[in-house]
Amino acid sequence: MDLRSNATLDAQTIKRFGTVVELGEHTPLTLDSGAVLGPFHVAFQSYGELNADRSNVVLVCHALTGDQHISGKHPVTGVKGWWDMIVGPGKPLDTDRFFVICSNVLGGCMGTAGPNQIDLRTGNLYGPDFPVVTIGDMVRAQAMLLDHLGIEKLFCVIGGSMGGMQVLEWASTYPERLFAAVPIACASRHSAQNIAFHEVGRQAIITDPDWKQGNYLQTSTIPRQGLAVARMMAHITYLSEAALGRKFGRNLQDRFALTYGFEADFQVESYLRHQGQSFVERFDANSYLYITKAMDYFDLAADHNGDLASAFSGTTTRFCLISFTSDWLFPTAESREIVHALNAVAANVSFVEIETDTGHDAFLLDVPEFHAALKGFLNGAAAHHGLNN
Amino acid sequence: MDLRSNATLDAQTIKRFGTVVELGEHTPLTLDSGAVLGPFHVAFQSYGELNADRSNVVLVCHALTGDQHISGKHPVTGVKGWWDMIVGPGKPLDTDRFFVICSNVLGGCMGTAGPNQIDLRTGNLYGPDFPVVTIGDMVRAQAMLLDHLGIEKLFCVIGGSMGGMQVLEWASTYPERLFAAVPIACASRHSAQNIAFHEVGRQAIITDPDWKQGNYLQTSTIPRQGLAVARMMAHITYLSEAALGRKFGRNLQDRFALTYGFEADFQVESYLRHQGQSFVERFDANSYLYITKAMDYFDLAADHNGDLASAFSGTTTRFCLISFTSDWLFPTAESREIVHALNAVAANVSFVEIETDTGHDAFLLDVPEFHAALKGFLNGAAAHHGLNN
Repeated sequence: MDLRSNATLDAQTIKRFGTVVELGEHTPLTLDSGAVLGPFHVAFQSYGELNADRSNVVLVCHALTGDQHISGKHPVTGVKGWWDMIVGPGKPLDTDRFFVICSNVLGGCMGTAGPNQIDLRTGNLYGPDFPVVTIGDMVRAQAMLLDHLGIEKLFCVIGGSMGGMQVLEWASTYPERLFAAVPIACASRHSAQNIAFHEVGRQAIITDPDWKQGNYLQTSTIPRQGLAVARMMAHITYLSEAALGRKFGRNLQDRFALTYGFEADFQVESYLRHQGQSFVERFDANSYLYITKAMDYFDLAADHNGDLASAFSGTTTRFCLISFTSDWLFPTAESREIVHALNAVAANVSFVEIETDTGHDAFLLDVPEFHAALKGFLNGAAAHHGLNN
Repeated sequence: MDLRSNATLDAQTIKRFGTVVELGEHTPLTLDSGAVLGPFHVAFQSYGELNADRSNVVLVCHALTGDQHISGKHPVTGVKGWWDMIVGPGKPLDTDRFFVICSNVLGGCMGTAGPNQIDLRTGNLYGPDFPVVTIGDMVRAQAMLLDHLGIEKLFCVIGGSMGGMQVLEWASTYPERLFAAVPIACASRHSAQNIAFHEVGRQAIITDPDWKQGNYLQTSTIPRQGLAVARMMAHITYLSEAALGRKFGRNLQDRFALTYGFEADFQVESYLRHQGQSFVERFDANSYLYITKAMDYFDLAADHNGDLASAFSGTTTRFCLISFTSDWLFPTAESREIVHALNAVAANVSFVEIETDTGHDAFLLDVPEFHAALKGFLNGAAAHHGLNN
């Protein structure tokens, strides 16, 4: 199987999106909303080699603003992929051993069906006509991709933040297809505070006059200001007060005294402005709306009559939950709730809380204790799964 | 002295702003920026009666979006003043006993000199030409007001959040004028995280096309969307995750199922949208820029060669600091730092941390333990000050 071949796409697109496959032509995907999607594209990247019995597949699920380019140089930003520290030869997700796949989520903006893509049925841009999707829809699209690739079972599914939500959904919907699951820095439902932050970001975007009711791409504008504000605010929630204090404190930006004006006096202001501006260059504003909505809708217990444990009943998957002490977006208590639910169905579950002041973004950063815990769990699980070193 | 008289203003203005006095005609106020202000208006309200020896004056300092209308029906919003629970006959700040004054801060939008007011020197609207002000400037303007009113010494100065910053500045700049000081839910400097949140709010406003470089009032527009987004975000920081969870959780707004659209599915979304919209009706966007900047600039230790204790050296003021367990904007640790500095100069200081899940806004809410602590401290201090009951 040559996963790289995609005769219908030009070299530029392949470089940008990785491999793009068309799914759902004959059996479309019925979304949680009732809308039907198909045929539709899913774009993905893979790292390492699939072994002969196809038993070494790790599915990595990306977070809100991540994408399929985990490792190596990102084709759009030119910087390293978001999990370059985790995925590669000799790294915790060792590509000398595992075949690692990551697909762009449904609703994303990097080649998988989403508001900035073409509806294959009509040839028109989806734009705001793209249907609202859920974490469950994202996971079902991933399962269709694996079916298409002839991969029946995953050694492991892993991800942080919204990636962790997908891991939980995988473990609940396709328990028979998973040997191990690693939900990191996540929750089984989005909290009121997190919905609130997302809603502010969405309002910043949709009240930007350049959003044009979501039809900005047709007019070659983008709601730059709204998207930048949304990103700036969200970025604060990904860090911690301690990390911001340690990194920036009240240090002034390129000056020795206050300006008594509205320029960025403080480094933290410049930093945030830069975060906002650079995000606009790489992310689609409508995608931001769709994906935040999917996270807000996530509530695994609600999908199981209010009983989280029953989402996992009978599971034989090995779980490792990881949380970070300074993560106030997805605090440890929310991981602990999941652990309790898994304990209630006698699941095989490990739980590691990592001490760090780096906040929610810890799962993307150089946190050695986290990397060691991950490596330890994966090595143990691989041994049980009969994967030779 | 009839504090109510103000012959030059019409009834409508007096109703809206309370009493407005003109200050700094002969001795203008030199701001921290070096700019000079004068003559300028300060608008204030008072409650209770000044006693014969003028020893029963309490100065209340309002927070970012507060104003001088503490108690009774607010002339603009029609709802109760922000400290109606605290200020009144028989209440912790008992107006049968104390003469309570609150003036709109410099840079505010309720009658004191600020960007939505007329520059008395030119007859033109200040707009974005209003100079950047600091917490120190606000406090010096308040001192000028008290001079004007013939009030030499305050029994107490009290305030929460930015009001607490003003209390600290008062205690540092005019120790001889204060008998007691109550800084509530505040800090001696604004943290990197808080600066970050403010900067996002400012960016939301100034990137709104209707802001028009700050000159929107001349064109009868207001940057509604930007100001509403700024308020929505800030409002989240005034609450706590627990309070949001308790109050709204994931409850749906006027519906029984998810919409799979971008309407407000959840109550917390509707609530925030309402907060944003109603704020726009009562607050000036430029004022929001100026006042947030003043808070960001606040760093009392930096004004004293990096030594917070020396800001209070030799003080004879009685302090009572109050913080709230779930306040993550001004966490207890920041109040404790102030207590340590006061201890280092052997000041008379009490410190109360109130257990509540209501977050930073606790100082505005019905938190009985807080009200009891405040009443206890004020009664004790009043007795020491020779104020009869």
